Amino acid sequence: MKQEFLEILSVKTETKIVFLIIDGVGGVPVDGKTELEMANKPNIDNLCKDSICGIMDPIAPGITPGSGPAHLALFGYDPLIYDIGRGLLSALGIGFDLKEVDTCARGNFCTIEDGIIIDRRAGRISTEKNEGLCKILSEIKIEGIEVFVLPEKEHRFVVIFRGDDLSSDLSDSDPQVTGVPLSDVFPKTEDAKKTAEIVNQWISEVRKALASQYPANMVLLRGFANYLKIPSFLELYKLSSCCIATYPMYKGLAKLVGMDILDCGETLEDQIKILKENYPSYDFFFFHIKQTDKKGEDGDYEGKIKAIEDVDKIIPDILSLSPDVFVITGDHSTPALLKAHSWHPVPLLIYSKYCIPDGITKFSERDASKGSLGRFPMQNLMSISLAYAKKLMKFGA
Amino acid sequence: MKQEFLEILSVKTETKIVFLIIDGVGGVPVDGKTELEMANKPNIDNLCKDSICGIMDPIAPGITPGSGPAHLALFGYDPLIYDIGRGLLSALGIGFDLKEVDTCARGNFCTIEDGIIIDRRAGRISTEKNEGLCKILSEIKIEGIEVFVLPEKEHRFVVIFRGDDLSSDLSDSDPQVTGVPLSDVFPKTEDAKKTAEIVNQWISEVRKALASQYPANMVLLRGFANYLKIPSFLELYKLSSCCIATYPMYKGLAKLVGMDILDCGETLEDQIKILKENYPSYDFFFFHIKQTDKKGEDGDYEGKIKAIEDVDKIIPDILSLSPDVFVITGDHSTPALLKAHSWHPVPLLIYSKYCIPDGITKFSERDASKGSLGRFPMQNLMSISLAYAKKLMKFGA
Repeated sequence: MKQEFLEILSVKTETKIVFLIIDGVGGVPVDGKTELEMANKPNIDNLCKDSICGIMDPIAPGITPGSGPAHLALFGYDPLIYDIGRGLLSALGIGFDLKEVDTCARGNFCTIEDGIIIDRRAGRISTEKNEGLCKILSEIKIEGIEVFVLPEKEHRFVVIFRGDDLSSDLSDSDPQVTGVPLSDVFPKTEDAKKTAEIVNQWISEVRKALASQYPANMVLLRGFANYLKIPSFLELYKLSSCCIATYPMYKGLAKLVGMDILDCGETLEDQIKILKENYPSYDFFFFHIKQTDKKGEDGDYEGKIKAIEDVDKIIPDILSLSPDVFVITGDHSTPALLKAHSWHPVPLLIYSKYCIPDGITKFSERDASKGSLGRFPMQNLMSISLAYAKKLMKFGA
Repeated sequence: MKQEFLEILSVKTETKIVFLIIDGVGGVPVDGKTELEMANKPNIDNLCKDSICGIMDPIAPGITPGSGPAHLALFGYDPLIYDIGRGLLSALGIGFDLKEVDTCARGNFCTIEDGIIIDRRAGRISTEKNEGLCKILSEIKIEGIEVFVLPEKEHRFVVIFRGDDLSSDLSDSDPQVTGVPLSDVFPKTEDAKKTAEIVNQWISEVRKALASQYPANMVLLRGFANYLKIPSFLELYKLSSCCIATYPMYKGLAKLVGMDILDCGETLEDQIKILKENYPSYDFFFFHIKQTDKKGEDGDYEGKIKAIEDVDKIIPDILSLSPDVFVITGDHSTPALLKAHSWHPVPLLIYSKYCIPDGITKFSERDASKGSLGRFPMQNLMSISLAYAKKLMKFGA
């Protein structure tokens, strides 16, 4: 269903939807069992008996998604239409308070000798060193615009150019190889000419400012991106929505779609407390769990099982609020065996008093694949959830 | 997933993919069981236990495919975009070495009396007679171009016009009914005017050359088609690929997508030998089995079961090579009961060490339909296979 139709059909109601997003929840078997199959999770499995299950492809069958497009799909947006550039994701990842006029790029500190790049990561300088260098670069002034330079980890940083009529239709200055000079930044469209001049001017100031900072004596920029203008949850779905997440990037993604970002601590208990306090105030709750994805990326099979078991313990707290629609799924799979995001479809459970329980009694990749929701594109989850919350009017007479 | 994305996401790796295409593998029950359900195929069923299954629609639900579009779908091309004209398929079918400048048409020898078509198939003349007539027609010279006339079976032949700036935007000379005169060939576009003149000139020379050959005293042309320019496996998927097939048409289809065509004999043992010899040299192997389709088209239920059992015997040979991804499926169904290609979805098995075995223990239409891959368009098989071979990068950050 195209989002335009949802905008027409959706209505404001009193019902509430909770999305419990267990990041990277899907796995593949190690000694015959996946992390979900090994985990002792009586609460989720019990809920399964009153729910419907299925599996979802975040982008398309076989495609491994990044966190940006996977979350857009969860939220009902076509991830092939709304493209989150690398620079934007980095800015979201450090929790930078982006404005619509911002153009962002991902940066590396690098080493040059006689104008030639000899190390694209400046020997992987420490994050502390990086922080000092970002302070130096923040001193550079360009007339008519503001520039923000903020550290990520090791050699990585984000630069944000803020000003009117800036465009991200720019080529990278990072040639992605060593042994060659830096590239100039070229405009890809007429509209981007001014921005290219500004960025190149900034880069030439950087060269002077870092001249004595060997090995981090230059920067490489890539993935220029504008703030993504995207219709909000309120416009599209009439939902007042909030985000309960501990990691900056997910807060940033939620902010993109117009959610309120609720301050919460670091633990699941903190997150539950915030959910309970704010439950009367919103229609939609994006509750994000990071630990599962982290353990998956570390290749920590046991750790991921434990993380799933920890999530299971908060299920009664969520159910005590009696959400009208309760969705448990992930944004993508992160099998410990692969130590990375993967292309495997993601198991899903939807609880509502209007569902026809499909006989699935355990929540796992294999069990969910036999559920009545079948296998479908993740982008459809939002319309299905709105339906079970009785938030969609009839189509046609 | 659009192929453009695969072109961006695909990477060259050391992993290997084998597609075992059992042509027309799907059937419908005779006395309650399909050919696959009746066949004794312990090796395939055993592999099933470590694999994932599903069923695929070659074109769309309910649509019976020809071999051309079915194979394009298997290879990841949208069969509704890449249209293999009848003339092109005929040229591929006889193993003609097509060039990009060629325009092909399917021909019938027919009988005319006083300029009126009285038999569109010239009494179904013998293939031997056809061969003699094609030799006569090959003598006709048209200035500035080359014309090739090659026999198919009985009254059918292929004509290939080779020259610069030829177009296939032409109407048929075959009115598809008797009792009327031949149609002239008309250009459908301005660009095709020259080609229409050339073809009409050739047809008028044919009329003279065949005047004394009653009942095969004229020809009807239809399905004009140019060589199909199609992005190759190497461009799209970074795959060095080869075809191990015994029938010319499948070699022709493989050549269209840029595969190397390996010489092999007529038997399954010959094909296996060629696979083993060439295994180190390629990333992708298209291994085509014709016998199943042939038996299905003959309505030979028992023969098709036997053909499936023969294929089962070569499975250990293929597994001994340890392919990273091993796909067993067909291009379409050819139920013996129907004696023809059919619209039924095609069962599929994918083996990889990264799959989550879905509990399907027998390879058949009914069993595969319960597998975790669900039911999906055949065109997606390629991206799924590339994913399991770890040949696709992450989409988005």
